[in-house]
Amino acid sequence: MQTDLSAALDIGGTKIAGALVDTHGRLIVRAARPTPADKDGATVMRAVAEVVGELAAGPEWARVAAVGIGSAGPVNAASGTVSPVNIPGWREFPLVAGVQALVGERPVVLVGDGVAMTAAEHWQGAARGHANALCMVVSTGVGGGLVLNGRLHPGPTGNAGHIGHISVDLDGDPCPCGARGCVERIASGPNIARRALAHGWQPGPDGDASAAAVAAAARAGDPVARRSFERAAQALAAGIAATATLVEIDIAVIGGGVAGAGEVLFAPLRAALRDYATLSFISGLTVVPAQMGTDAGVVGAAAAAAQQSRLEAFVPAP
Amino acid sequence: MQTDLSAALDIGGTKIAGALVDTHGRLIVRAARPTPADKDGATVMRAVAEVVGELAAGPEWARVAAVGIGSAGPVNAASGTVSPVNIPGWREFPLVAGVQALVGERPVVLVGDGVAMTAAEHWQGAARGHANALCMVVSTGVGGGLVLNGRLHPGPTGNAGHIGHISVDLDGDPCPCGARGCVERIASGPNIARRALAHGWQPGPDGDASAAAVAAAARAGDPVARRSFERAAQALAAGIAATATLVEIDIAVIGGGVAGAGEVLFAPLRAALRDYATLSFISGLTVVPAQMGTDAGVVGAAAAAAQQSRLEAFVPAP
Repeated sequence: MQTDLSAALDIGGTKIAGALVDTHGRLIVRAARPTPADKDGATVMRAVAEVVGELAAGPEWARVAAVGIGSAGPVNAASGTVSPVNIPGWREFPLVAGVQALVGERPVVLVGDGVAMTAAEHWQGAARGHANALCMVVSTGVGGGLVLNGRLHPGPTGNAGHIGHISVDLDGDPCPCGARGCVERIASGPNIARRALAHGWQPGPDGDASAAAVAAAARAGDPVARRSFERAAQALAAGIAATATLVEIDIAVIGGGVAGAGEVLFAPLRAALRDYATLSFISGLTVVPAQMGTDAGVVGAAAAAAQQSRLEAFVPAP
Repeated sequence: MQTDLSAALDIGGTKIAGALVDTHGRLIVRAARPTPADKDGATVMRAVAEVVGELAAGPEWARVAAVGIGSAGPVNAASGTVSPVNIPGWREFPLVAGVQALVGERPVVLVGDGVAMTAAEHWQGAARGHANALCMVVSTGVGGGLVLNGRLHPGPTGNAGHIGHISVDLDGDPCPCGARGCVERIASGPNIARRALAHGWQPGPDGDASAAAVAAAARAGDPVARRSFERAAQALAAGIAATATLVEIDIAVIGGGVAGAGEVLFAPLRAALRDYATLSFISGLTVVPAQMGTDAGVVGAAAAAAQQSRLEAFVPAP
């Protein structure tokens, strides 16, 4: 029997998604359960087991070579445990051991969800063909991952690329992480909305005070809404430029709800990058929107599993 | 004949140093010339050729397997050119081609001086045994390099690890690089001295207004001098924490004249790291002084040449 599939799990605070993924990134079998995030850890693990059970029920399961898990963080790939902020029942929960018990001898690879999204964009999306890339999600939070020398760089614990929590404003506002002036504290959707409201932006009659509503106002010419996106773009630019200066990436891919604002975000972001990415060796750095949709999590977890367990059929060409 | 040596060149604005280096990091043959930095490019290249000629004059030259060059930056390893700020006669100067013409078929590897210093600390110094490390020089400028997954990470152009020019204060003072609030703009020796003077510190009767003099004053209890070092430490901590958050290093090694201030720098640096390195996966991050002395440049260039040309006898064990 040919072992040409990866099994993938994408574990978030709302949904546990699973799939069997082939060497072209196609989803052959799908399964999903709501995450019982308000329940105890064993109950959450049972939902994972149900997803795996559904994936394993068909004849395709025999073709699975490796299992990849992308999880909301923090994760610890070294110990195989996860402590997702939005799943309080899991604290240093031994997720890899739990999944390993369900899948036999197959290698199980755990990475953070930012790393998984990066693997998907590198394999099938906007970072394809780039040997050195940063991929980001700008949404309720800001996460990311890195491709270096043509390969995913998860780091020893699977958390590398955490650009949301680098400080670009060392005297800035306190961040829930404990530091100050983190990229996420300035550029996440809730912070874009908060800043617009604080500077006098008024939501429309529907009362929608989301970052998407601020984006709509910015597109309509509201100067306060525009300035809030410009400030977010400035923080993202400083963080992206820092990443490029440190590891020499040549492309930054941005997905997530805030990236959906389009040119309201990307135009000031490209302008701000010219201010911060000044050294000659990163002058070619570009910023583009992500291409993968809602399946990025499972596709990326499959790619991470394949890359790390060295199933070369899956390894994206640099 | 056994090819068990690397030839190494360390090219700075003051001196061109060369050595033949064995697999234990010992310097078997040495040569050096002052850098004729105020002369034209061909004259500077003749000084390089003299150093190589001296290295090549003895019987050991036949044992040389590869040639490493660590150069003041910017460098471009992709094109083999260098444009050192302090050597105006060299702008996109084809240094690799020039050296290649002197050394026959041997592979020639070019990296920035921060990357070379990092290779030396990883091979023989304070980063030995660490698979993921940041090494820095804090001096007139702030430079650095990275070890990732047990190997030097020079990046495609040989400039990775340029921590001096990441912004940690996005609205901060303009930096000569064109950005704002760069680590170097806050933490370099001249900026430590400038800030102390601006806040009322008075040099002693000898008129010494260097960072070393500020360090001496700080050790003697001068509060303005202390605060200037604390601010430098804060910027370094933000930059080091950002690096760890992005790529998962577990040690930062700091050399250079400012690191010579000892606990005047390292005590507030360790304190500030607790403020900025907040995520669980980097909680084990430590900061230590560099161990390699003035030979770090040539030792590191030799290690970089050996690693990149895959002479396994030289590759430091992770």
